[in-house]
Amino acid sequence: MEKTIMINEVLEKIRTYYLEMLPFNKVLGIGIDLLDYETGDAVTSFDMKKDLIGNPIAGILHGGVTASIIDLTGGLSALLSCAKYHQNKPIDVIEKKLVSSATIDMRVDYLRPGKGVSFKCLSRVIRAGSRIVVAKIDLYNETDLRIATGTATYLIG
Amino acid sequence: MEKTIMINEVLEKIRTYYLEMLPFNKVLGIGIDLLDYETGDAVTSFDMKKDLIGNPIAGILHGGVTASIIDLTGGLSALLSCAKYHQNKPIDVIEKKLVSSATIDMRVDYLRPGKGVSFKCLSRVIRAGSRIVVAKIDLYNETDLRIATGTATYLIG
Amino acid sequence: MEKTIMINEVLEKIRTYYLEMLPFNKVLGIGIDLLDYETGDAVTSFDMKKDLIGNPIAGILHGGVTASIIDLTGGLSALLSCAKYHQNKPIDVIEKKLVSSATIDMRVDYLRPGKGVSFKCLSRVIRAGSRIVVAKIDLYNETDLRIATGTATYLIG
Amino acid sequence: MEKTIMINEVLEKIRTYYLEMLPFNKVLGIGIDLLDYETGDAVTSFDMKKDLIGNPIAGILHGGVTASIIDLTGGLSALLSCAKYHQNKPIDVIEKKLVSSATIDMRVDYLRPGKGVSFKCLSRVIRAGSRIVVAKIDLYNETDLRIATGTATYLIG
Repeated sequence: MEKTIMINEVLEKIRTYYLEMLPFNKVLGIGIDLLDYETGDAVTSFDMKKDLIGNPIAGILHGGVTASIIDLTGGLSALLSCAKYHQNKPIDVIEKKLVSSATIDMRVDYLRPGKGVSFKCLSRVIRAGSRIVVAKIDLYNETDLRIATGTATYLIG
Repeated sequence: MEKTIMINEVLEKIRTYYLEMLPFNKVLGIGIDLLDYETGDAVTSFDMKKDLIGNPIAGILHGGVTASIIDLTGGLSALLSCAKYHQNKPIDVIEKKLVSSATIDMRVDYLRPGKGVSFKCLSRVIRAGSRIVVAKIDLYNETDLRIATGTATYLIG
Repeated sequence: MEKTIMINEVLEKIRTYYLEMLPFNKVLGIGIDLLDYETGDAVTSFDMKKDLIGNPIAGILHGGVTASIIDLTGGLSALLSCAKYHQNKPIDVIEKKLVSSATIDMRVDYLRPGKGVSFKCLSRVIRAGSRIVVAKIDLYNETDLRIATGTATYLIG
Repeated sequence: MEKTIMINEVLEKIRTYYLEMLPFNKVLGIGIDLLDYETGDAVTSFDMKKDLIGNPIAGILHGGVTASIIDLTGGLSALLSCAKYHQNKPIDVIEKKLVSSATIDMRVDYLRPGKGVSFKCLSRVIRAGSRIVVAKIDLYNETDLRIATGTATYLIG
C-alpha cells in the first residue's frame, strides 16, 4: 500500500517535471501515455504542427524533432529506472537523483520520412544498471509505420 | 567567373532554405556563420533562450536541442557536398537534389552540461562520396568549451 | 522454378564467400544458420574458444569479437538485400555487387558480459533501400541471454 | 618519485594485461606504442596479415578487425583514466578496478577501405568522469590515411 503511494508520487513528479517544467518539451507539444514503474517502459505522443517541420515540400518532421523525441522518451525510461533503484530513499532525495540524470550518448536511425498527423514514441529498457541505463526507442506515426529507431545510454543520478 | 556566380547562387539557396523555409530551424533560432563550398565545412550559431531549456534547475540546453543542432549543422555539410557533386547541372536540378538529401543516422555524445549564453556548432566532412557523406560535428559554448560532439551519415540526393 | 535456382545459387555464393574466402571469419569460427532471401534475415553461430577471450579472469568474449560478429551478421542481411535488388541481373554481375558492398557505420551496445559456451547472432533488415541497408543485430548465448545489440548501416554494391 | 614508480607499475600492469593475457589481442597481433598517464592518450599498432582480411579480392581489413582495434585502443584510454582516478589506492585494488572496466557502447565509421601493410590507432579521452570515459579513436594506415574513426563509451571499475 505505502509502496503504491510512493510510486504514484514518483510518477506524478516525473510527469510534472517533463510536462510543465521543461520549456523545450512544451515546444514539441508532447504528452506522456505510459510510465511503467516495474519495467521502465515509457510512451510519449505528439501531433504534427508547423513548428516541427524540417522539409516544407515533403511536410515531414525535422530530423532534430525526431532525435529530440527519441532522447526524451528514452529519458523517461532512465528516470523510471533511477526512481526504482533509489526507491527506499525519501522522495526529496529521489527527486534530486532524477534531476541529475542525463543522456551520455544516443544513436538515431532515420528509417523513413517523418510523415504523419500524430506520432507515438515507445522506449524499452535494454540494460538497467545501478548507474547506466540503456534504452531502445522507436518512433511511429498514426498508421503504425516506424519512422525512426534509436538507442540511448543514460547516466542515472 | 561563371563558376563563382553558380557557387554563390547555390550558397544563397542553401542559406534561404535553412533560415527561411524550415520552421523548426526558426524555433531553434539558428544563424549560418560559414558555408565552405570547397571543403564542405559549415558553422552555425544560436543564443540560449528559455524555449531551448531542458533542465530548469541547471538552466542547460535540452538534449534534443543539442541533437537538433548537430544534425542540422552536419546537414549543411551534406548539402554543400551534394551541390559540389552535381555542380555541372542546372541550378533547378541541384535544388531538387538538395531537398531530397536526408540524414541516415547520427550519434551524439553529450560531453558536458549545455551551459552558456551563446553556442557555435562546427561541421567537417570526414567522408565525401557520390551518395554518402559523413560529418563530424562539435558544439561549443561562448567560452569555447565543447558541450557535445557527434557523427552523422547523410544520403545525398 | 528458375528463380528458385537463381536464389539457391546466390545463397550458395554468399555462404562460400563468408565461410571459405574470408580469413578473419575462419579465425572467429562462424557458421551460417539462416539466410532468408525474402526478408534479409540472417543467423550466424559460433562456439567459445580461447582465442576469442577478452578478459581471462571472467572468461568472456573480447568486445572486438562481439563487434565483429555483429558487423558480419548484419553484413549477411546487406548481401541478401543486395542480391534481391539486383535479382534480374546475371549471376556474375550480382557477385561483383556483393563483393563491393561494405559497412558504412555501426553501433554496438554491450549489454552483459559475454559469458557462454556457444553464441547465436540474429540480424533483421530495418531499412532496405536501393543503396542503403540498415540492420538491427542481436547476440545471444546458449541460454538465450542477450549479450549485445547493434545497429549497422551498409552501402550495397 | 614514489608517484612515478606507481605510475610505471600501473603502466606495466596495463601493458602486460593487454599484450600477454588477452588471447584475442594476440590474434590481432597488436603492440602498444603510447600510454600517456596524464592525458589518457593511447596508441596501438599492428601489421596486416592474412588472418585479418575481410575481402580477399581487395585485400583489405575485415570490418570486425577495425572495430576490434578501435574498441581495444579506446579501452586503453579507459584503463588509464581508471588508474588515474584510483591513483591513491593500493596497486592490487587498482588492478581489480582495471579488470572490471568495460565498454558500454561504441560507434565505428568506416571511412575508407582498410588497405595497408601496417596500421596505427590513436585514442584520445574526450570525456573523463569518475565512472564514465568517452574516447575518440582513429585508425590510420602507414601512409597516414585515415581508414576509420570511432567513439566509445566505457564504464570504469
